[in-house]
Amino acid sequence: MKQILMMSSSRKGNLGYLEHADDQLHALLKGRAKRVLFVPYAGGITFSYDEYESRVKPVFERLGYELESIHHHKDPRAAVEQAEAVAVGGGNTFALLDRMYNAGIVGLIRERVNAGMPYVGWSAGSNVVCPTIRTTNDMPIVEPPTLKALNLIPFQVNPHFISGKPAGHNGESREERLAEYLGINPDERVVGIPEGTALHVQGENATVLGEFDALYFKQGGAIDKIATGSTFSLASI
Amino acid sequence: MKQILMMSSSRKGNLGYLEHADDQLHALLKGRAKRVLFVPYAGGITFSYDEYESRVKPVFERLGYELESIHHHKDPRAAVEQAEAVAVGGGNTFALLDRMYNAGIVGLIRERVNAGMPYVGWSAGSNVVCPTIRTTNDMPIVEPPTLKALNLIPFQVNPHFISGKPAGHNGESREERLAEYLGINPDERVVGIPEGTALHVQGENATVLGEFDALYFKQGGAIDKIATGSTFSLASI
Repeated sequence: MKQILMMSSSRKGNLGYLEHADDQLHALLKGRAKRVLFVPYAGGITFSYDEYESRVKPVFERLGYELESIHHHKDPRAAVEQAEAVAVGGGNTFALLDRMYNAGIVGLIRERVNAGMPYVGWSAGSNVVCPTIRTTNDMPIVEPPTLKALNLIPFQVNPHFISGKPAGHNGESREERLAEYLGINPDERVVGIPEGTALHVQGENATVLGEFDALYFKQGGAIDKIATGSTFSLASI
Repeated sequence: MKQILMMSSSRKGNLGYLEHADDQLHALLKGRAKRVLFVPYAGGITFSYDEYESRVKPVFERLGYELESIHHHKDPRAAVEQAEAVAVGGGNTFALLDRMYNAGIVGLIRERVNAGMPYVGWSAGSNVVCPTIRTTNDMPIVEPPTLKALNLIPFQVNPHFISGKPAGHNGESREERLAEYLGINPDERVVGIPEGTALHVQGENATVLGEFDALYFKQGGAIDKIATGSTFSLASI
């Protein structure tokens, strides 16, 4: 059965790196994997892959899981083939997807997750779970071969969801951006997940984890809350 | 001589639509054009092209210029060929570029602007002046055939530049995004333009117009101010 944890962000409020996520990570991994393959491709731009790994590793070790980054493997495809679980960190979604295609692991991760390998992503790592990365908040700093992504769920997710916009600034609010998204893509669906919140996909259902509700953006501008703790069918979105 | 006005935004603070821009628009158009062809392709998603035109037209008419939107023309290429000047409005940069490619006007606008036809863009309309749209702030709501754009200047511009990030939110600040951009694209250059500010490109030089300075993001994280009122060589960036 498909097991995916899509976290909005690595941080919630003033908490430390993934500090809010102990229960969410256990919900995905406990009894299913001991060792986790880390994909740092969304980072490694203004800091190194080694640095990224050294930030993430202690979090997983504290919870009882080993973690090793894919950049230590000469053959990234073999690393994915042998992985017990995969963790895909945040950073820039365009860089992440571009490097996943370069490493030849997009189709392979899709196959293995569909066959039951647990997958956890946060921020950019959640964007790539969707059909495309077209609901990312990130700057397109590189141009991947395509914006099509893992397509492991049938709708789009917007991580780091935040309502409104900074005072005195005239860029679009997130609600306006997502209304434009649905305006130009009338057959698609979007779920916004606030920082600290996650979706735990199990098979054909997903459960909202964390303090805050998820938000279902509907055609025409209506926004439904999906209560934290509730479970919904992926097909219902 | 090339004549391009790249405005950061349609609004500055609490002023109305393009209300801050009278002097900037005259600097570009006065004595050079009477009629302006409007390209509304960045909008027309949550409101119609007609509505967009009706918002922009009175601004130009008040300043003594006629304005008509390209969507009234059956042949958009012929409209560009016959235009005295082009105005490209803000909205979503990915939608804008995608629709410009669909209309077959990207190469044509480039040729005509290089041959001296005045061009004014704001927000998304300024992004497409650059080599690519990879420094847009917008959500990639559609996937254009390529992110390559008009390439009328040799560096990237980031419109709606704003420093820092909203309190309590853990997404990246604009400075962090642009540092990542330069980290992964070490041979490129970026100029940030705050809302209300514009670059007026004349031939091989550009002048900063508006109340606030432009910002030159350099490799390694240094940020130089380019003082408003000053003129610099495009090649110096």
